[in-house]
Amino acid sequence: MVKGSEPLTYKDAGVDIDAVTASLSKVGKLAAATHDNRVLTGLGSFGALFKPDFSDMQEPVLVSSTDGVGTKLLVARKAERYDTVGSCLVNHCINDILVMGAEPLFFMDYVAAGHFAPGLLEGIVEGFASACREQGVPLIGGESAEMPGLYAKEDFDLAGFIVGVVDRARLLLPERVREGDVLIGLRSSGLHTNGYSLAQKVLFERAGLSVDDTLPGGEVSVAEALLAVHRCYLACLRPLLRDPALHGLSHITGGGFTDNLPRVLPEGLGAIIDRDSWQVPAVFRAIAQHGPVERDEMDRTFNMGLGMILVVAAGDAERISTQLRASGEDPVRCGRIVSGEGVRYEGSAEL
Amino acid sequence: MVKGSEPLTYKDAGVDIDAVTASLSKVGKLAAATHDNRVLTGLGSFGALFKPDFSDMQEPVLVSSTDGVGTKLLVARKAERYDTVGSCLVNHCINDILVMGAEPLFFMDYVAAGHFAPGLLEGIVEGFASACREQGVPLIGGESAEMPGLYAKEDFDLAGFIVGVVDRARLLLPERVREGDVLIGLRSSGLHTNGYSLAQKVLFERAGLSVDDTLPGGEVSVAEALLAVHRCYLACLRPLLRDPALHGLSHITGGGFTDNLPRVLPEGLGAIIDRDSWQVPAVFRAIAQHGPVERDEMDRTFNMGLGMILVVAAGDAERISTQLRASGEDPVRCGRIVSGEGVRYEGSAEL
Repeated sequence: MVKGSEPLTYKDAGVDIDAVTASLSKVGKLAAATHDNRVLTGLGSFGALFKPDFSDMQEPVLVSSTDGVGTKLLVARKAERYDTVGSCLVNHCINDILVMGAEPLFFMDYVAAGHFAPGLLEGIVEGFASACREQGVPLIGGESAEMPGLYAKEDFDLAGFIVGVVDRARLLLPERVREGDVLIGLRSSGLHTNGYSLAQKVLFERAGLSVDDTLPGGEVSVAEALLAVHRCYLACLRPLLRDPALHGLSHITGGGFTDNLPRVLPEGLGAIIDRDSWQVPAVFRAIAQHGPVERDEMDRTFNMGLGMILVVAAGDAERISTQLRASGEDPVRCGRIVSGEGVRYEGSAEL
Repeated sequence: MVKGSEPLTYKDAGVDIDAVTASLSKVGKLAAATHDNRVLTGLGSFGALFKPDFSDMQEPVLVSSTDGVGTKLLVARKAERYDTVGSCLVNHCINDILVMGAEPLFFMDYVAAGHFAPGLLEGIVEGFASACREQGVPLIGGESAEMPGLYAKEDFDLAGFIVGVVDRARLLLPERVREGDVLIGLRSSGLHTNGYSLAQKVLFERAGLSVDDTLPGGEVSVAEALLAVHRCYLACLRPLLRDPALHGLSHITGGGFTDNLPRVLPEGLGAIIDRDSWQVPAVFRAIAQHGPVERDEMDRTFNMGLGMILVVAAGDAERISTQLRASGEDPVRCGRIVSGEGVRYEGSAEL
């Protein structure tokens, strides 16, 4: 039954271990640049070692999250620009544990592709490493898998994994939220990492745009608008994590305000969002108009320009907004907590 | 430029949030069955909360690892059997931190697909959950992404993330290994999760076998042989982690003995593997014969029947083997540590 007679090697099966090893060496240097003295390196290579310092905590709780970049990757591939998606993933993961009150300890990545074209893996990992450096989060390990047959040659996917910590008494739990609390929104940089299937269907299929066209109603290309790095809110929110007036944080990801705000509210409380309180950015308006996509569907799919919502005591809202402005933010007082459930919208549905 | 006029929804873009939500609810129950009182549930849903107990440790070090299942997934898809690959990933991750001396704290998963056919996601997560239950490792969170366009409809991929802990003084470091130490191999259940690109090229392409054919020289089908669950060595090795005679552990993954053993050896020491000391299982013999694949290439690609190698003090080798047999293992005294570097092979190269 043997059809070939030349001895086969692993390389013949499409996996060039030597090429991957060379790539991994570059990647290792990128990761090493994110390390600090909590990362124990050179002590073995199967697992990544991290020595945490919990000495200032009563009851440390590890808060972890895993995520992918979703179909934003398709835009990266179409635009042949791989440097932003890794940063998006790091920042997304940081924001997801930040809303529990946790600060990050370390990050790990998984990258898989049909074929690691020259520069692809390095480009992606440079994205991880640059966000990790910027936020002070060591990239302590990862897995890179070249899998011909499982992925088409140009296909690839990423997953990220973050571990952070919070002292149990400082966990941001729904029970902190009160009727009358004020919602303060922080600007997003664009779609962040959600809603890309719908966005692409509208902009590329229905509107017939290419990545290099100027975004309708905007000033940048479609690629630039869609590939903007998911913002990280760690730096501006870290000083507020011990502020008793901060009652909750909601990271506006897939599901928009409609699905994400209720996740941080206790039973019996809902939220009202005032649609007139901020100007929805051009990229969302373009999607709504060219779909068309109705406003309610937009609000349950996209962040609409506000990527993080703070729930704060009403009497402290102005003080906290001032503090956020001092951090370079342009905060929006975008709604309030009311009795009831779910999210209701006030103001004009026009975009 | 608008080509359609019916309002678009996220579902129109190929993502059915409601169907995914129903699937996630089942998956949530599978995960919940792995939880214990260290997992703080119901306290919010953005990040997963785990309260570790480090009270019996002087200097806890977190040991983490991430991995995928590789092209073993192609065999699962071909055989339409999705229940083993999740378990493989959990066990692989546990073994990877075990070799540092660490015991697992918790596991998280990432699953992505072009389309979650009914039962696919649940099947995969049942695999995660059953291995997690068996090993006492809570599955505390995960991400499931349906990404039409990024993955072909039938394509899917998994990644796993594990965090464990070891007291710094108990880290298994290369400096423990001594010349004259004995290598004890523990049986694998098959290929585990490495070498599947080559195995499939040989068995499906060159030998023309299908998943339902009986493995040449074996007693089970090709699918059963290739999809066997990656063994977890936690239960049998946990009692030995505090044994001063255990000098090292090497998880034989991609790269075989040739690449994995040197990772746990200090500079100036190498290993000799005695190829005559155990019978290589049928699945490896079939691959070598039907490639053909030369023995050296086999040894740098597959585990050849020994999935974990212990490096132990020579004088304690018999005692440790006896202890392993009492745990139900069939240990093989398969080699020794010598001065030099890398891995050399003794005995017959015949299979």
